[in-house]
Amino acid sequence: MAKADKTNFSCPSGFPEFLPGEKRLEMYLIDKIRQVFERYGFAPIETPAVERLEVLQAKGNQGDNIIYGLSPILPPNRQVEKDNAGESGSEERALKFDQTVPLAAYIARHLNELQFPFARYQMDMVFRGERAKDGRYRQFRQCDIDVVGRGNLSLLYDAQIPAIIAEIFQSINIGAFLIRINNRKVLTGFFQSISLAESQIVPCIRIIDAAEKIGEVKVEKSLIAEGLSDGQVAQVLEFTKIRGTVDDVLIKLKAIVENNSDTQILNSGIVELETVINGVRNLGVREDLFTIDLSIARGLDYYTGTVYETTLIGHEALGSICSGGRYEELVGMFVGEKMPGVGISIGLTRLMSRLIKAGILQSFSPTPAQVMVVNMQGDLMPLYLEVSQKLRQVGINTITSFEERGMGKQLQQADKRGIPLCVIIGSQEAELQKCALKNMKTGAQIEVALDQLAVEVKKQLE
Amino acid sequence: MAKADKTNFSCPSGFPEFLPGEKRLEMYLIDKIRQVFERYGFAPIETPAVERLEVLQAKGNQGDNIIYGLSPILPPNRQVEKDNAGESGSEERALKFDQTVPLAAYIARHLNELQFPFARYQMDMVFRGERAKDGRYRQFRQCDIDVVGRGNLSLLYDAQIPAIIAEIFQSINIGAFLIRINNRKVLTGFFQSISLAESQIVPCIRIIDAAEKIGEVKVEKSLIAEGLSDGQVAQVLEFTKIRGTVDDVLIKLKAIVENNSDTQILNSGIVELETVINGVRNLGVREDLFTIDLSIARGLDYYTGTVYETTLIGHEALGSICSGGRYEELVGMFVGEKMPGVGISIGLTRLMSRLIKAGILQSFSPTPAQVMVVNMQGDLMPLYLEVSQKLRQVGINTITSFEERGMGKQLQQADKRGIPLCVIIGSQEAELQKCALKNMKTGAQIEVALDQLAVEVKKQLE
Repeated sequence: MAKADKTNFSCPSGFPEFLPGEKRLEMYLIDKIRQVFERYGFAPIETPAVERLEVLQAKGNQGDNIIYGLSPILPPNRQVEKDNAGESGSEERALKFDQTVPLAAYIARHLNELQFPFARYQMDMVFRGERAKDGRYRQFRQCDIDVVGRGNLSLLYDAQIPAIIAEIFQSINIGAFLIRINNRKVLTGFFQSISLAESQIVPCIRIIDAAEKIGEVKVEKSLIAEGLSDGQVAQVLEFTKIRGTVDDVLIKLKAIVENNSDTQILNSGIVELETVINGVRNLGVREDLFTIDLSIARGLDYYTGTVYETTLIGHEALGSICSGGRYEELVGMFVGEKMPGVGISIGLTRLMSRLIKAGILQSFSPTPAQVMVVNMQGDLMPLYLEVSQKLRQVGINTITSFEERGMGKQLQQADKRGIPLCVIIGSQEAELQKCALKNMKTGAQIEVALDQLAVEVKKQLE
Repeated sequence: MAKADKTNFSCPSGFPEFLPGEKRLEMYLIDKIRQVFERYGFAPIETPAVERLEVLQAKGNQGDNIIYGLSPILPPNRQVEKDNAGESGSEERALKFDQTVPLAAYIARHLNELQFPFARYQMDMVFRGERAKDGRYRQFRQCDIDVVGRGNLSLLYDAQIPAIIAEIFQSINIGAFLIRINNRKVLTGFFQSISLAESQIVPCIRIIDAAEKIGEVKVEKSLIAEGLSDGQVAQVLEFTKIRGTVDDVLIKLKAIVENNSDTQILNSGIVELETVINGVRNLGVREDLFTIDLSIARGLDYYTGTVYETTLIGHEALGSICSGGRYEELVGMFVGEKMPGVGISIGLTRLMSRLIKAGILQSFSPTPAQVMVVNMQGDLMPLYLEVSQKLRQVGINTITSFEERGMGKQLQQADKRGIPLCVIIGSQEAELQKCALKNMKTGAQIEVALDQLAVEVKKQLE
């Protein structure tokens, strides 16, 4: 059969798709992450991929993102029908570019149907008109949790976040990682305490945020360019050098408070940070998994308190693999009351594809089948089908081979697919109600009575 | 805090979203369906929501669907950048409207990376510019399986499909259902056997397809309008009246073959149908769950052999809740070789919302939390956190209450959220390392030592 035309079937640039073995890995990760989210009582929701454009753009939320608007394409030879007038109407719609703006809209839509504090997770696809380059996708899955309170929200919710991050990355076994915790009030308060003007604070936070990458000389130059005095520059540089255990850092921060006057915000930042750290400890998170990092600020403007980043030790170039923070205003602006929230996000598609490239994660086999029943002779097919069903009934993923090629070819195919076990039944075995069970990894082949097959398969799969 | 403006936050019309309890039900259904798919060795894939427009429109595949094209919307105050030139370029993209066309494209893209027969499942969202009316959505989840062969594909794959459908609907417990099986060659062959012209066959298949709804008188009129002779009309009416057990129907069909001359296609349709039915029986599907229904044809033009519909007994108005069939040409046209396939689709979003309305399915509780640890006094919080973590560590979904309201209010809240168990620890209990465990359903409250709590909770959750 010749191809009917020269259609280009490739994926649109920046829209990734996985082979079955990669998709199976992704589903494994999704299941693991979801399990941890649910352990802490987060409930799932899913907002539509499509929102009204005015919602996505409300309060300047579009930020720097290019978003995808929708325009209906009618089928050839079809006029706009009365029924579908809505499709050519004036309601502008677009694809969501994150989960946070839709969360705020969701809460506004269902305020009286939800219980607060509202703890939800979401693992949907989001869409951004990013430049399609290595590791940047235009469609990707984002795994988010947020807790949103009505009126107020305990700082202990902030403390749960590092416990959740730790449990997720321990459960998917990706090696050593470090959760870096900070509080934006500490940064803002510190800059106030050394008498910076309001307008200098955000640029200076950005400079500190970049300190690790750009080095001290460049930090100094940038601060001077922002108009800081020599004394202020020295104080900032000292601040960026604060290191040590969580307790060391808290002691050094408290010393700054003692030596300065205008420290109300700094002080409340330190109190928040200490409360969160104590909670993290009470939750039993291992001390080597978290730290205070005063240079963490997160780019997003809406964070107001606690902020988090997570670094994979030895793979710092990946950037933060899980980030977030507390925001006091974002949801409230949509609803019209005070609704503080705290949450984190894992950019799963990007994380997974980078961890595969770095050799930290491996694709799964391309099929979930654990057993293949070989087709030895066509007249035994009813028995093969019966044997397959009996395995499935006890929870074993099984395929029956309908191939008419020789046994060798069929075993080769099972091996290529990574199917661990093959069941072989010829006429002699059928008569004796037994089979040969071949382990494709070890090559070992044993004889098993058919009524013992499920038990033996389960044993070998363990 | 006042709302900053009058943004309309509602969902765009036809784009549904679920409350947490409904979403939890959907995830339960997804998990159940996926489990059955994997039992039969189907591997997951996910194609992008977005395809190149020419792929979606190739071979006239758009059909009657209105599809959504994408157009980038730049952020305010931003010009087109060189980097994002692609976003204003000429590559037209649109949202997928089904899973079958993307499956064909996926196979064309990965032909040499896949093993054949390629058995895959997909549970993604698809998008259609439907008129937004009751039960019709513009975004909905479709759960599809297909097996695609290279060159040929055993009819036993067709036989597995009813076994899979039966297992799914039995596992989600939605009451009695009937899988109706037919073969388009039987229909085409029958019409040839009574000497209809080629051009009359498709219209007549459509008339038979509608027979149940429109009744005999209208069928007769329609057939006359198609130009059939009185004798032909009588033969068609007799055909539509063929009823009975699977074996009865096969015997009656064979009688038609014996009494006619031009029956090559009819005969091969009957042989296929019989092979599939025998396979379904060998797979142990209960006889009352499937039938041959000669009026089933499926609207889609690409089906060439076996076709399936599934009816929920007592809820026939829902229409078919799971349908599909065999197609010989669809994938092959994309790839340029012979690639027959067979598959089915469950329109999950629509099915679920209609089953909820019909009272067949119920929403879950709005939280996965199984236990709430009550906040009796703030100074015991470290203990509450520790107790919560110990429950989570053995797989129990737990929330710690951070509320500062009285115990009664907190218990009320747990009850409202459908949390089955509450753990109550005051200073006395703390001292004695025990707690009160309250069952919210029965109201019963017992005293449990903290080191026995996990065991007791698991017992009560059973």
